[in-house]
Amino acid sequence: MVEKVIAKWNCSGRVVEGPTNPMVTPLLTDLYQFTMAYAYWKANKHQERAVFDLYFRKNPFGGEYTVFAGLEECIRLIANFKFTEDEISFIREILPGSCEDGFFDYLRGLDCSEVEVYAIAEGSVVFPKVPLLRIEGPIAVAQLLETPLVNLVNFASLVATNAARHRFVAGKSKQLLEFGLRRAQGPDGGISASKYCYLGGFDATSRKVIWTVLSMLLAVVRHINLYLPTYAFFFHSNVAAGKLFGIPLRGTHSHAFVSSYMSPDEIIDKSLQSADGSSSCEDFVILVQTWINKFQLSNSLRGIFGETNQSELAAFTSYALAFPISFLALVDTYDVMRSGIPNFCAVALALNDLGYKAVGIRLDSGDLAYLSCEARKFFSAVEKEFGVPGFGKTGITASNDLNEETLDALNKQGHEVDSYGIGTYLVTCYAQAALGCVFKLVEINNQPRIKLSEDVSKVSIPCKKRSYRLYGREGYPLVDIMTGGNEPSPKVGERILCRHPFNESKRAYVVPQKVEELLKCYWPGSSDEPREDLPPLKDIRDRCIKQLERMRPDHMRRLNPTPYKVSVSAKLYDFIHFLWLNEAPVGELQ
Amino acid sequence: MVEKVIAKWNCSGRVVEGPTNPMVTPLLTDLYQFTMAYAYWKANKHQERAVFDLYFRKNPFGGEYTVFAGLEECIRLIANFKFTEDEISFIREILPGSCEDGFFDYLRGLDCSEVEVYAIAEGSVVFPKVPLLRIEGPIAVAQLLETPLVNLVNFASLVATNAARHRFVAGKSKQLLEFGLRRAQGPDGGISASKYCYLGGFDATSRKVIWTVLSMLLAVVRHINLYLPTYAFFFHSNVAAGKLFGIPLRGTHSHAFVSSYMSPDEIIDKSLQSADGSSSCEDFVILVQTWINKFQLSNSLRGIFGETNQSELAAFTSYALAFPISFLALVDTYDVMRSGIPNFCAVALALNDLGYKAVGIRLDSGDLAYLSCEARKFFSAVEKEFGVPGFGKTGITASNDLNEETLDALNKQGHEVDSYGIGTYLVTCYAQAALGCVFKLVEINNQPRIKLSEDVSKVSIPCKKRSYRLYGREGYPLVDIMTGGNEPSPKVGERILCRHPFNESKRAYVVPQKVEELLKCYWPGSSDEPREDLPPLKDIRDRCIKQLERMRPDHMRRLNPTPYKVSVSAKLYDFIHFLWLNEAPVGELQ
Repeated sequence: MVEKVIAKWNCSGRVVEGPTNPMVTPLLTDLYQFTMAYAYWKANKHQERAVFDLYFRKNPFGGEYTVFAGLEECIRLIANFKFTEDEISFIREILPGSCEDGFFDYLRGLDCSEVEVYAIAEGSVVFPKVPLLRIEGPIAVAQLLETPLVNLVNFASLVATNAARHRFVAGKSKQLLEFGLRRAQGPDGGISASKYCYLGGFDATSRKVIWTVLSMLLAVVRHINLYLPTYAFFFHSNVAAGKLFGIPLRGTHSHAFVSSYMSPDEIIDKSLQSADGSSSCEDFVILVQTWINKFQLSNSLRGIFGETNQSELAAFTSYALAFPISFLALVDTYDVMRSGIPNFCAVALALNDLGYKAVGIRLDSGDLAYLSCEARKFFSAVEKEFGVPGFGKTGITASNDLNEETLDALNKQGHEVDSYGIGTYLVTCYAQAALGCVFKLVEINNQPRIKLSEDVSKVSIPCKKRSYRLYGREGYPLVDIMTGGNEPSPKVGERILCRHPFNESKRAYVVPQKVEELLKCYWPGSSDEPREDLPPLKDIRDRCIKQLERMRPDHMRRLNPTPYKVSVSAKLYDFIHFLWLNEAPVGELQ
Repeated sequence: MVEKVIAKWNCSGRVVEGPTNPMVTPLLTDLYQFTMAYAYWKANKHQERAVFDLYFRKNPFGGEYTVFAGLEECIRLIANFKFTEDEISFIREILPGSCEDGFFDYLRGLDCSEVEVYAIAEGSVVFPKVPLLRIEGPIAVAQLLETPLVNLVNFASLVATNAARHRFVAGKSKQLLEFGLRRAQGPDGGISASKYCYLGGFDATSRKVIWTVLSMLLAVVRHINLYLPTYAFFFHSNVAAGKLFGIPLRGTHSHAFVSSYMSPDEIIDKSLQSADGSSSCEDFVILVQTWINKFQLSNSLRGIFGETNQSELAAFTSYALAFPISFLALVDTYDVMRSGIPNFCAVALALNDLGYKAVGIRLDSGDLAYLSCEARKFFSAVEKEFGVPGFGKTGITASNDLNEETLDALNKQGHEVDSYGIGTYLVTCYAQAALGCVFKLVEINNQPRIKLSEDVSKVSIPCKKRSYRLYGREGYPLVDIMTGGNEPSPKVGERILCRHPFNESKRAYVVPQKVEELLKCYWPGSSDEPREDLPPLKDIRDRCIKQLERMRPDHMRRLNPTPYKVSVSAKLYDFIHFLWLNEAPVGELQ
């Protein structure tokens, strides 16, 4: 019998649920976190109060901004950070036999009740060097948190940023669907990608948003005999999510579905009731064929195609019989213009005769700009010739290896695509597969610490800091500034000197029109600090979209964006350089 | 109460365990697999016998080979493919209300007992277009398997190939450690990366191989109140794995550990027993200081450094007190040559006085080639001057953003690194974040099917096929050939024409010296075919290493490798092109 202890940390009357992925436990870490914890304990140093900053050094994808995501999962881990007896036995087995028993007793009692976590709000636009999370607590505990926290923030922020960048290129009016499960880096890569792509501005109608979240839930439910209250939240949030997002069911199909049919003769049950239930068509196959014949006699359509592919026609007809209210056809199995589009239109118009409205087509290969325009022309010609109002606006989805570049190229060429399905390049962050988040000690026992490096960009900024975003007259954020913990905060209307942390010649005076403190308390530990709530995903997404819109456009453009300025106060600048000189050994030239 | 049904498919007296990641369930799929399944069912077509090939189109990383991995997880999914009542309720909720009840009854009874899976052995070297898996069974079931199977093979094969490529550049004698958990694409990205990097030739001593696998196990155990027999295998295989791989505990530490110390005065308990327990050193701190003093008086070492960093010295001393048998120090927090190396040596020699042998150092920044050579010189000088046999061979591990290119550059410059820790570039497959595996229908009801495309590389090769690897006189594999299912197999010593599937001018006669059939039965369904065993990971890794060694070197080189030939029989070639002409509509120029 394994005991599951949940730290009932209960600020604002709420227990924080465990991590979404049940594999995220205190053991999902590097071995050296345990050897260090032992060494701290052995030196009786484990309770020393340390401050760590979690931050990244460079914006991804050649851009000048990043979307911060993963915070809620971090807090869930922290709230439930507790070793089971089984886990402790395993750690004991792995560490050398000489490790003393007292250490395992210490692990047994260990949780995050003495840890304080300050963070920028999830979904915020963030910049290099500015701490996303500041973890303060006993050094051994904070150190154990390093690997899982970095893991949880890294990919989440990377894929959310990738989604935001794709949204930026596609434009606000297009529907963006995440299609990447099969190409994701493992099952969980697919699951978190769905969540964080939504956060970064994708539409909730992704067919996978719902399935992956459900699959998570069900995986858990399948493997648990007692329905643990820990999961109640997922259960509700997911079903609720489906309703909240108002996901229209877009039943579509693959190429295999099309080629699994040989001819319309295969279809046995050919009857279809009209949408209002008032009548029934006995032979829908013939009704479809009638439309094909009409096209062949039509002035405007004649000549575009000869014989359409019969297996494709059979597949479309059969699919429409199964899903008359949500007919979306993949039209490129044989030939888009000479077969797929006319076959789709024949089935769509037969459905229209019975009061159904087809959803549209999906293009998955070829010249998407050209084909979407040709398809639109065909739809418009059909609308005009056969008097079917709105048919010209039939939906066009495109989905073949799309990424920022291909979306941009489509825009430049002109196209008629309404909706994009983006897979591989989105979920694997193909353009840059990792964000280099780091977790650095900045203070211990109230002593600021610095990590030097021959590479200046890798030198850490010491001290327990505060961070502010300063806004200019036009309402844009101008600069982020970090100060020592005890410095007075910047004030609206008061001139403040912002210095580059490492380049002495780069500095500027700013008179902020608005000052926003970035780090808020998300886990107060045993302090009395009020705690920020963890908002629902939808609110995080809204924050993200709003913040992206509020940025000065030159920071956001794809080509040569202007770097957003990140600075330190004059006092912190001086202190950094004092400490640097103090710690670096003086060389001897020989 | 949720029921967990395990298909007790029991060939060779063994139940196949469920997928390693409990999130891999029949619901980890795209919605359209369910809409298609419904459409098949509605058209009474769901039981039609279909054959699908799972293959990729292009080798990753600009290379000419791929390592196939993920098969065992696929078979685990298939063996346990069964919907629970909860899952069925969810599917019902998501599909339109008009879907008939009979479909859900059908899902309730659905499993993979009528599915046959043929596959290439896991760990094999494989090539584009040749099926890695051939799935034969009722079309609705086979279709439901598409997304999870592609997901399970894609990243596994990609990261195993990446590991093999890193091993190729590093050389056989180096130790390769996988360090990437914190940068992986989510928790599971890290877990599967550990497994498949080992498969691809990394060493078992990765600190994460053990922790991640354990964490998986424990995640499951933590969340399950009844200890399910399904997981017994993991339990044993993982503990066994630790023993089998003979993992030496390499307790190391991070930069934060070093900078958490201020000076050796902090160390309270300074005593250390000798390795053989015969004596005890009362003040290890003083013993270390004695060595620092000796260095400063030494002829060969004097001048390399002045004052070493005291917080670093304190951290090393403290760590050695905790782990005297496995002292490995990170030496680049302040300055490698002027502080880290002398500090390490002082602690290592103090340990040596007490009969302990230090493991070595880790370099995590700077010019690794230069620093490793300088460190080696220092170690050798210490060996000579102080008469410590073997000290010159002290281990040097390097670990800063390494990838194929940097390993290659290190080799060209000359270096003294014994062991590499590779993280981000390895586990995220940074150079190419996805392998484009596809799952294509090649036959239904014994009728071959083809998927056309304007891009020839995307045309599928129809028919239920057999595949062979033909070996030449020098023992190298020469060509893979696919034939129709009923063609006689190629014979040793008999000339056979191998044709490029799509380019009529590319063809060659081959007289094979050895013929190896590639597809073996891993899941016979209800057929009487004998079933291949799923070998332990260690054997898969051995196969991989052996197969990589057996390849002709020009296929394996990093720069402009020669493509390995993939062909079809003359008969299959003719058939492909007959079918192609048959399916493609004839255009009309206007």
